[in-house]
Amino acid sequence: MKTVSTLFDLRTARLSFNGTVGLVPTMGYLHEGHLSLIRQAKAECEHVFVSIFVNPTQFGANEDLSKYPRDLERDLSLIEPLGVDVVWNPTPEIMYPAGYQTWVEVDALTHPLEGAIRAGHFKGVTTVVAKLFNAVQPHKAYFGQKDAQQAAVIRQMVRDLNFPLEVVVCPIIREADGLAMSSRNKYLEGADRAAAVVLSRALNAAKKEYEGGERSAEALRRKMKEVIEAEPRAQLQYVSCADYDSLEELEVVKGKTLLSMAVILGKTRLIDNFVLG
Amino acid sequence: MKTVSTLFDLRTARLSFNGTVGLVPTMGYLHEGHLSLIRQAKAECEHVFVSIFVNPTQFGANEDLSKYPRDLERDLSLIEPLGVDVVWNPTPEIMYPAGYQTWVEVDALTHPLEGAIRAGHFKGVTTVVAKLFNAVQPHKAYFGQKDAQQAAVIRQMVRDLNFPLEVVVCPIIREADGLAMSSRNKYLEGADRAAAVVLSRALNAAKKEYEGGERSAEALRRKMKEVIEAEPRAQLQYVSCADYDSLEELEVVKGKTLLSMAVILGKTRLIDNFVLG
Repeated sequence: MKTVSTLFDLRTARLSFNGTVGLVPTMGYLHEGHLSLIRQAKAECEHVFVSIFVNPTQFGANEDLSKYPRDLERDLSLIEPLGVDVVWNPTPEIMYPAGYQTWVEVDALTHPLEGAIRAGHFKGVTTVVAKLFNAVQPHKAYFGQKDAQQAAVIRQMVRDLNFPLEVVVCPIIREADGLAMSSRNKYLEGADRAAAVVLSRALNAAKKEYEGGERSAEALRRKMKEVIEAEPRAQLQYVSCADYDSLEELEVVKGKTLLSMAVILGKTRLIDNFVLG
Repeated sequence: MKTVSTLFDLRTARLSFNGTVGLVPTMGYLHEGHLSLIRQAKAECEHVFVSIFVNPTQFGANEDLSKYPRDLERDLSLIEPLGVDVVWNPTPEIMYPAGYQTWVEVDALTHPLEGAIRAGHFKGVTTVVAKLFNAVQPHKAYFGQKDAQQAAVIRQMVRDLNFPLEVVVCPIIREADGLAMSSRNKYLEGADRAAAVVLSRALNAAKKEYEGGERSAEALRRKMKEVIEAEPRAQLQYVSCADYDSLEELEVVKGKTLLSMAVILGKTRLIDNFVLG
């Protein structure tokens, strides 16, 4: 396994491979969710690249960029046994040198949900992902369903900008109690960690209603809201029952549907989702 | 020479080539300027792709999209003898299908000069060029110095977004009297065609002052303005004496410098430029 930092070293490493290449973009502090993406890339591609880059442009001014957890040594030791070919770990100065001024933006899909709360977040995501795609030139790129809107936005960007690659979205990996894995779970302390199960519980409750025949999107949103509001430590940001592709809020559930939510516990913001249909 | 329209056919054609590929993006209605780009691509690359696409997103609401000159048959007959491998001639629906919503934007470099007058123009240019790059995956891409700001903006985009290709900018090709070749010259009628020589005359006058030792950017701008204003048919939009890379207006000329201007003659808007230093 080779670890590179500069664009030149990354390109040199890339040119040494002729077979299919899978890219797993990450911000590091890897958990089982990331590792499942890497394993799937390894199963589907001849060569696997993992990028580790805490991308400053996708953090808002009042967000946790400086406090975002980092542990490169631990990350590398987790990746090493999986048969990854190249780890790309650029600095912010490599990705955004002085005079940097180009941005990639997806429009409608970035307006609701996370986009409505985290101004500029997706502009940072699509820009860095476009840069990663151009630098690595993968045949397939792997993202987690945990960030459902991000996956939808990147699929749209790839289609719109003719990127010659396939976006593969892999299932959410959960802790034993149902909490979706996230690098930010590390911030959860004591009672907040226990209360964090309320997200998957709310999604499960709505799913159960759906399976019982409920097709009113408002009823499903109300159900999720009820469960969250019954947890006194949880502060609800949004619940959504939206079309899987357009992310527009539904009135009646039909076809592939995304249940999603954002909840604050203590100082930690958590998101989770289920796909129906 | 193969002519393709769909993205699928373009990709299939692209996959049949293993050697270096040069791309010449055009809006058609080819003149000697375009042909010089194709010849240079042919001299430097094993395979040459030419795209012909009148890109709607780079025209403003009050600009000449519907009247922009088109003649595909003539274009193909001009390209055929040059040894081009593939001509890509997509429809607007192929490039911007229903639901299209992704944009590439370069910031500071697009603010002055053309960007200040043609709102949204460069957003359309960078978006379509990013799409062309991703679809064709060229090793080199050829642009004319005639659109000096466009060339600077695309160089910046390529650098910022890590596109794995080289931007080659080729010299302006001029008519015998000095008028820079442009598809829009077709619009010039009678006395306006004769008067159009005023752009290169103004640039030459400023260049002569520079060669005589003048280093005040304001003096060079004033000189160009004087020459344009002496032509009663010409309506000046801007004259500029700017840093070649940043396009910022200079006080003192030193290093590579761009003299440029936009002038309206009748209903036709013309641009031209010279590089000093």
